[in-house]
Amino acid sequence: METLLLNRDAVDENTQMEEVIRAVEDAFAAYARGDAQMPAKSYIDLPQYNGDFRSMPAYLEAEDWDAAGIKWVNVHPDNPEDYDLPTVMGTMVYSNPENAFPLAIMDGTELTMKRTGAAAAVATDHLAVEDATTMGIIGAGVQSYTQLEAISKVRPIEEVVVSDLDEERVADFIAYFEDEFDVRAGSIEEAAQCDVLSTVTPVEDPIVSREAIGEHTHVNAMGADAEGKHELADEILLDSKLVIDDHAQTTHSGEINVPYHEGVLTDDDIYGELGDIVVGDVEGRTGEDGITVFDSTGLAIQDVAAAHVVYEHADDNDNGYPFDLIGTETETK
Amino acid sequence: METLLLNRDAVDENTQMEEVIRAVEDAFAAYARGDAQMPAKSYIDLPQYNGDFRSMPAYLEAEDWDAAGIKWVNVHPDNPEDYDLPTVMGTMVYSNPENAFPLAIMDGTELTMKRTGAAAAVATDHLAVEDATTMGIIGAGVQSYTQLEAISKVRPIEEVVVSDLDEERVADFIAYFEDEFDVRAGSIEEAAQCDVLSTVTPVEDPIVSREAIGEHTHVNAMGADAEGKHELADEILLDSKLVIDDHAQTTHSGEINVPYHEGVLTDDDIYGELGDIVVGDVEGRTGEDGITVFDSTGLAIQDVAAAHVVYEHADDNDNGYPFDLIGTETETK
Repeated sequence: METLLLNRDAVDENTQMEEVIRAVEDAFAAYARGDAQMPAKSYIDLPQYNGDFRSMPAYLEAEDWDAAGIKWVNVHPDNPEDYDLPTVMGTMVYSNPENAFPLAIMDGTELTMKRTGAAAAVATDHLAVEDATTMGIIGAGVQSYTQLEAISKVRPIEEVVVSDLDEERVADFIAYFEDEFDVRAGSIEEAAQCDVLSTVTPVEDPIVSREAIGEHTHVNAMGADAEGKHELADEILLDSKLVIDDHAQTTHSGEINVPYHEGVLTDDDIYGELGDIVVGDVEGRTGEDGITVFDSTGLAIQDVAAAHVVYEHADDNDNGYPFDLIGTETETK
Repeated sequence: METLLLNRDAVDENTQMEEVIRAVEDAFAAYARGDAQMPAKSYIDLPQYNGDFRSMPAYLEAEDWDAAGIKWVNVHPDNPEDYDLPTVMGTMVYSNPENAFPLAIMDGTELTMKRTGAAAAVATDHLAVEDATTMGIIGAGVQSYTQLEAISKVRPIEEVVVSDLDEERVADFIAYFEDEFDVRAGSIEEAAQCDVLSTVTPVEDPIVSREAIGEHTHVNAMGADAEGKHELADEILLDSKLVIDDHAQTTHSGEINVPYHEGVLTDDDIYGELGDIVVGDVEGRTGEDGITVFDSTGLAIQDVAAAHVVYEHADDNDNGYPFDLIGTETETK
């Protein structure tokens, strides 16, 4: 029995975004139903290298499939300059829960981008206005691409406004998407007026003001993934229907972590978790809602769900490189 | 930049046992000095499949090297019968701590056996009599081989007594080692009279009685790795110089877990952790000592230390299969 090795390109090729969105939605539902196991992310902090490692194991049981695996991922901000390597790299081990055989080992970097876009799409599907045709993107880095890629699967996005201080990034983003969308550079304020807004920056001082946000804009706050990070003015969070991916993670390192620890925002201001909406325990957008916000930190179950889709496709299509890692072909002692 | 893939045979071939023993000793020293990070093992329990997954991340800084990685490992006891797969399989991701690049992905199954043998050797080196020439092995399963392989590097073992209810296992063990040692089948009592004894069974009711143990025998209690497991009579533990690998792990799932939770054995009965002996904070065997016991549960730092040795050898010798997992050769968006 062999383990399928899937590099970055193979992960990209075998990601059917519609299916990843459905699988990630299934994962949120499983989590809400109590059919998922997700031990707390554990961290190894390496201040001497200005970096850290995170381990993200999970198991989930959806209605007609289950899956297990672990992502080992890092954040080393000096990598691009010092090593010509990405800040974030991930390695995903995807295992058969029945017998634990490692079915696949895949690049977790591309996988992270895909599942992050998929989570934003699930939230957008439940929280944005139905006829959302405009989308704003603030922060045009590597994670921004899958925001548009995924969200355009759940809403009829036509116009896109992209905002970033780095003009080259903006130009790259426009060049990548201009055949498919009416996409242009714009200010933060212009982006924030769109029907859907995704913020994908690492800032620690909010860059989106309360006044900038459209009356019925749905915001995916994707950037905050560590203590101190904070993209949206507190008033936006307080005036919105505020949905989070996971209470422990968002209060620790999500968009709400700063106002939550300052006491400006409390549990009473949190409407619910995305999984609760997916399973129907609480409602998504209703006719009365104005601004909605999804605070996403990224859950291990999203990785496992996305890996499930990638593996099944790759296996069906004979993609990837099969490798006898465990040596089941070898006689044991 | 490519990631080196090392299958079971490659791990075996690149394990220089003497070096693994030194690296594992360095790891215990780093842990005792506070130069290691080892988040608690996290578990995913799957009772529906009678199995579990464990994630074991670690970083350690030895005097002239450092290393980071994670082992994802399972215990599925029905595997041999139901799937013709091993009960335990592991996958190790070995990363450069400086920039988190995944230097190697290797079979963690073979690695586990090697590092477990190495830990027993480190303990034996500090706790057994100097002129130990006889060794007993109770339990001749897959983990028993590296006990003899490793311990014979630190003591002049000549005679070996192997005890197991399964005669085929005993015959296999003898056949494997008979060219190198005077090895014969024997009872538990005969094995327990040797200078060094390793118990490597999954039993929950002690099989080694107080009377059976030799006066100055050093025992490596390797088998217990879960709540309820227990190989040695409590009186052995209470009458010995008792050394553990890690307080949290051994009291939770090591040889001492049962008497510890029954209150039969307390912290006062624990002499110290192996790392404290390695760095010289407490003494190993002295002239006054009789029975000594090392309670080993297996630490993530052992895996990282062993992986370091395997990777360095494989890289030097151009072994393994280089694979562009992360896609650093690919243009990013």
